[in-house]
Amino acid sequence: MRLTERSWTDVDALDTDLAVVPVGSTEQHGPHAPLGTDTLTARAVADAGADACEHDVVVAPAVPVGVAEEHRQFTGTLWVAPDTLRAYVRDVVTSLAHHGFDRVVLVNGHGGNVDALREVAGTITRHDDAYAVPFTWFESVGADSSEMGHGGPLETSLLLATHPDLLREDRFVEARDGGSEGWGEWTHRVNLAFDSAEFTENGVVGDPTRATDEWGADLLGGAAAALAAVLEAVADRDTRRPDHR
Amino acid sequence: MRLTERSWTDVDALDTDLAVVPVGSTEQHGPHAPLGTDTLTARAVADAGADACEHDVVVAPAVPVGVAEEHRQFTGTLWVAPDTLRAYVRDVVTSLAHHGFDRVVLVNGHGGNVDALREVAGTITRHDDAYAVPFTWFESVGADSSEMGHGGPLETSLLLATHPDLLREDRFVEARDGGSEGWGEWTHRVNLAFDSAEFTENGVVGDPTRATDEWGADLLGGAAAALAAVLEAVADRDTRRPDHR
Amino acid sequence: MRLTERSWTDVDALDTDLAVVPVGSTEQHGPHAPLGTDTLTARAVADAGADACEHDVVVAPAVPVGVAEEHRQFTGTLWVAPDTLRAYVRDVVTSLAHHGFDRVVLVNGHGGNVDALREVAGTITRHDDAYAVPFTWFESVGADSSEMGHGGPLETSLLLATHPDLLREDRFVEARDGGSEGWGEWTHRVNLAFDSAEFTENGVVGDPTRATDEWGADLLGGAAAALAAVLEAVADRDTRRPDHR
Amino acid sequence: MRLTERSWTDVDALDTDLAVVPVGSTEQHGPHAPLGTDTLTARAVADAGADACEHDVVVAPAVPVGVAEEHRQFTGTLWVAPDTLRAYVRDVVTSLAHHGFDRVVLVNGHGGNVDALREVAGTITRHDDAYAVPFTWFESVGADSSEMGHGGPLETSLLLATHPDLLREDRFVEARDGGSEGWGEWTHRVNLAFDSAEFTENGVVGDPTRATDEWGADLLGGAAAALAAVLEAVADRDTRRPDHR
Amino acid sequence: MRLTERSWTDVDALDTDLAVVPVGSTEQHGPHAPLGTDTLTARAVADAGADACEHDVVVAPAVPVGVAEEHRQFTGTLWVAPDTLRAYVRDVVTSLAHHGFDRVVLVNGHGGNVDALREVAGTITRHDDAYAVPFTWFESVGADSSEMGHGGPLETSLLLATHPDLLREDRFVEARDGGSEGWGEWTHRVNLAFDSAEFTENGVVGDPTRATDEWGADLLGGAAAALAAVLEAVADRDTRRPDHR
Amino acid sequence: MRLTERSWTDVDALDTDLAVVPVGSTEQHGPHAPLGTDTLTARAVADAGADACEHDVVVAPAVPVGVAEEHRQFTGTLWVAPDTLRAYVRDVVTSLAHHGFDRVVLVNGHGGNVDALREVAGTITRHDDAYAVPFTWFESVGADSSEMGHGGPLETSLLLATHPDLLREDRFVEARDGGSEGWGEWTHRVNLAFDSAEFTENGVVGDPTRATDEWGADLLGGAAAALAAVLEAVADRDTRRPDHR
Repeated sequence: MRLTERSWTDVDALDTDLAVVPVGSTEQHGPHAPLGTDTLTARAVADAGADACEHDVVVAPAVPVGVAEEHRQFTGTLWVAPDTLRAYVRDVVTSLAHHGFDRVVLVNGHGGNVDALREVAGTITRHDDAYAVPFTWFESVGADSSEMGHGGPLETSLLLATHPDLLREDRFVEARDGGSEGWGEWTHRVNLAFDSAEFTENGVVGDPTRATDEWGADLLGGAAAALAAVLEAVADRDTRRPDHR
Repeated sequence: MRLTERSWTDVDALDTDLAVVPVGSTEQHGPHAPLGTDTLTARAVADAGADACEHDVVVAPAVPVGVAEEHRQFTGTLWVAPDTLRAYVRDVVTSLAHHGFDRVVLVNGHGGNVDALREVAGTITRHDDAYAVPFTWFESVGADSSEMGHGGPLETSLLLATHPDLLREDRFVEARDGGSEGWGEWTHRVNLAFDSAEFTENGVVGDPTRATDEWGADLLGGAAAALAAVLEAVADRDTRRPDHR
Repeated sequence: MRLTERSWTDVDALDTDLAVVPVGSTEQHGPHAPLGTDTLTARAVADAGADACEHDVVVAPAVPVGVAEEHRQFTGTLWVAPDTLRAYVRDVVTSLAHHGFDRVVLVNGHGGNVDALREVAGTITRHDDAYAVPFTWFESVGADSSEMGHGGPLETSLLLATHPDLLREDRFVEARDGGSEGWGEWTHRVNLAFDSAEFTENGVVGDPTRATDEWGADLLGGAAAALAAVLEAVADRDTRRPDHR
Repeated sequence: MRLTERSWTDVDALDTDLAVVPVGSTEQHGPHAPLGTDTLTARAVADAGADACEHDVVVAPAVPVGVAEEHRQFTGTLWVAPDTLRAYVRDVVTSLAHHGFDRVVLVNGHGGNVDALREVAGTITRHDDAYAVPFTWFESVGADSSEMGHGGPLETSLLLATHPDLLREDRFVEARDGGSEGWGEWTHRVNLAFDSAEFTENGVVGDPTRATDEWGADLLGGAAAALAAVLEAVADRDTRRPDHR
Repeated sequence: MRLTERSWTDVDALDTDLAVVPVGSTEQHGPHAPLGTDTLTARAVADAGADACEHDVVVAPAVPVGVAEEHRQFTGTLWVAPDTLRAYVRDVVTSLAHHGFDRVVLVNGHGGNVDALREVAGTITRHDDAYAVPFTWFESVGADSSEMGHGGPLETSLLLATHPDLLREDRFVEARDGGSEGWGEWTHRVNLAFDSAEFTENGVVGDPTRATDEWGADLLGGAAAALAAVLEAVADRDTRRPDHR
Repeated sequence: MRLTERSWTDVDALDTDLAVVPVGSTEQHGPHAPLGTDTLTARAVADAGADACEHDVVVAPAVPVGVAEEHRQFTGTLWVAPDTLRAYVRDVVTSLAHHGFDRVVLVNGHGGNVDALREVAGTITRHDDAYAVPFTWFESVGADSSEMGHGGPLETSLLLATHPDLLREDRFVEARDGGSEGWGEWTHRVNLAFDSAEFTENGVVGDPTRATDEWGADLLGGAAAALAAVLEAVADRDTRRPDHR
């Protein structure tokens, strides 16, 4: 049940302790994809996963700006400090838990948020009256942050399936040609780059011309199924901290 | 131009220094109105005002959770600490300014955010490389926070005009009957109450049965016109700080 | 009983849970009134209100510097960050409550402190073992921050009644002539100004030549009576937070 | 020139870069001396020292609550966290420096403030546009924090000279008899006690019956002369940080 | 050149801008390996890598406690909050850069530090006058945090090569038998566990009986060579941030 | 028992609540003594004192960088902000206490740490589930921070006894000749200097040519005996806070 769209009395009538908080980003995704890509995809996966779950799930509104200073050279990119994102997410989860929705999955759409969300989930789980765990949709379908690219085939496919009107297919070739093949500048498994502008001209990593809406539908379905399964595992889990040895 | 929906190259092509950041809240609005009311209204006014402005205006995504602990006794209400909201908004405005969008109006839909936004706007204007000013839509049409009620005729009218499907008209009478007539518990002009549950049973203040969609359209039009005028005044203003006397 | 002037054993002998904390400011008040105006008036009202109250009331020393960066263009104005004022007041109230003086009225003399004090009072009331509420003397007599002016007839009258030696009556005309009639620069109910130097030449708002000591005595009496009534209401109030609905 | 009592135009007419900020405490001083002792003495020394100085000196209002949690077992003692005091003092000094009063002596009346003031003075001097140095009046006359006692002969004498009406001479014997001879509980030069209630029954350390008003006048004169000399040394000092070696 | 062991004049005579800061942890490593394992290995790799580098390299003392709350159920584990580690490392790097050693590699020995170090390195590189990048020794030889185990064959081998006297070989079998095979409790690529005590009885992950000192020597040599290469790449890199696009 | 060198199971077998945390500094000590002097001496005293104590004592790894910005003009000096040191030490002590080692002595080797450690020890003792007290080795043998000098006869003697290989005896004369006789620049018992470079050319205070290894051995023995005695007093002490009076 989406909090934004329902009254407090509707939410009060639920019998669940599960919630999801989509966490996105507003940041460049090349010339062909919208700045809101990561928020749109996080929200789509959160909605679909909550629907697919056998339990009722409270869906919080998406956090729209995340840890994205790495794209600051590209106009329109917004970011907050990692401490700010952690505080915002922690406060949101704490207020969810105040109402009994104290098993929370943070549904993430942006690689730059991964570390901050893992950290704050640990803080919440150990120090607050709630259990929280991050779920990054592209990891759930087998891609990690460095493999997925940026505005590349996976994200572009997912948007083709969910928000085709926000993509500029006429710019896919330009996007690919001005982008890079991989994320970062590596030596001996250390990434020496901190800003994406160090290795991509137009902000793209990967080849969006490979994207298809069928692939996008598959990705969405796969991510939603994974999220539903995670929610069910969270529902069943003993979330208490272990005893001291 | 809505950041969420356009590519960075589209935004980069703009010739403007104006931006709006809608700031909402996810909090109880009685049995008849959605928890997202304040975000929905802030976003509607921000979009309409940006459209009505004679200049290009960058529209940031809405900040969906604000200072709403005052409603914490009602299920589904989310809140962040005032410090957290200020940090989040400051970081967002700072990143807008980094791209040259350094005259920013914070379009607010929630009375509980008013003080925090005025404070952070002052901090930004005095200490960062940007000018920011808050605009609370219901103040712009002549109602202050204490007059407007909560889930009352003004907010309900505005939603009738913009999101009628999210209202439960069948609950308007119940909403009115379980609500209170005024905000707070006052003695000698001091409000002794801190939580809305101290003075309203179901969270409502004011009479939503008085709401009409025509009134809502008028409110939206008036607020949008006011916002456009404020944006134009901001565009023309000398935003430098005065010299020491 | 003024803490500053009595021994701990004297205070320990009291049977009360009521306290007041005067909160002032050190900031320009035009050429005719002292920089300490807001502290002097807050302290005068706090003392008079405590005396007028039917219960014993502990009177803390006045916090002498507040949120006054808005006057920083005028020599001698001191200010602390809003976070600093909140921390200072919160710590003071917490230590009062440690001794059982856990119902506290923050007696405020400065418009710029209003928002910060309301916020910290809410934080204390919800999260600490105390109840706190702000009382701004000029609001209690029917003037809000924007109506009262600055160094204008109300403040000047009050000082005529309490500290006439600190006023320069020979400068009242000059003060009026170099001042402004209203506070701020407004468009569509939005104040675009952040610093008083944007709209007043000498820092004055309002006409101090209208001030009289009789008016000042009336103001002090009215504010003291209001404060005493608020203290009595606070003494009787159920300050526990309401149950979750 | 005392800021509290003069208009901004008066202060603006000064030709000086020197200021003093009295920093006191509101804390138990036994059954015979007022809780405000440390603020009263700091203010008295600051005023006298500023008067004795050959230069004009801006006198800020006294900071009335300091680092005094060590006395929290005694009713009426107020305290702020060390971080809060540092923030408050730093903000005050920064605003003084904003007007050109950027050589500041922190005139301290309380042993518990010594460490926090030395730290914040270093921070200001190295990182802000000001030079600040703490001056603790009883150190200036040859007594350090542990020697001076608490409510003992030095403080009591000073108050006899400045505020005899606030002392209860009829309780001097009781004060001495219920107090301790020394500060702390020491083993191998380590003080194992953190709270004064660990070693004094009524909060007193030292023998107030030894106090005389003549001694107090001498102490005040000596402290004022020392402060004036320090101010003159500060006026003449090259306060720039040394070059890197 | 190790800072700890040389005078400031010796360090001053160097002609380099390169430094390494070893960052370790004090945390359980099973019954067979010391709590200091991660500090010892980080220091060993840092020393060897600095020696292998063709440039002079300043070697800071090792930060001995890191982000290790995940092991808090095991006696002797120490940890600091992630914010604390970031502040500590940032301050250390800032002071190195103050002397001109402004290209800094953070040599890390603990998986739990990886995210915090990447974050603080980004903060330093973007906002301070220095460039910093983390290097985690076991990643440099091809193992990521989840593969490496904990007190498993890689760490145990490295200690066999560097500190054999601190290992208890007589407990290797016990260590393996009471440990787990993998790190975490995973569902759909999400690790639902936050504390190691959720999945390992004695704190071990992996099989230390497989460890050999030859393997350890190879690991140390490989890590040192990788670090030397990274240092040389850092020395040659243009570390300025890219221009805005 | 040194945590760094033993397994968690070894530490778990102890029956004690005593721990020591050495706190050092990495800072200039003249041309003749290593930058690590204060860490080396703190660790040496901590080890010797723990050994001399009749109880088991857990020895944490040394905190290697402290509050030393006062030496920042000398190459190689590292420092953290006082807030950072306090946070680091507090987190370390809190994690020790989590395992039952909740009576902790902070063994300090650096004058610049004294104030910060006393403050954080008070915070821990009053607000956390632990008792902590600082022990500065040179105070324990009768020298306070200002008397001891810097790189002078006491420190140099101690290093002669413990780490003679890290001293450059051939530079002792040069060290003395380029140093100063006393610490600071004093007027009326106020130290107007904040950086050591304001009063010493090469960083030395005092005469290292007076140092002998016999004196060093005596100092170490004396400090170790004092620390052992303090630990025993801490073990026996009622560390609960006193009741409110």
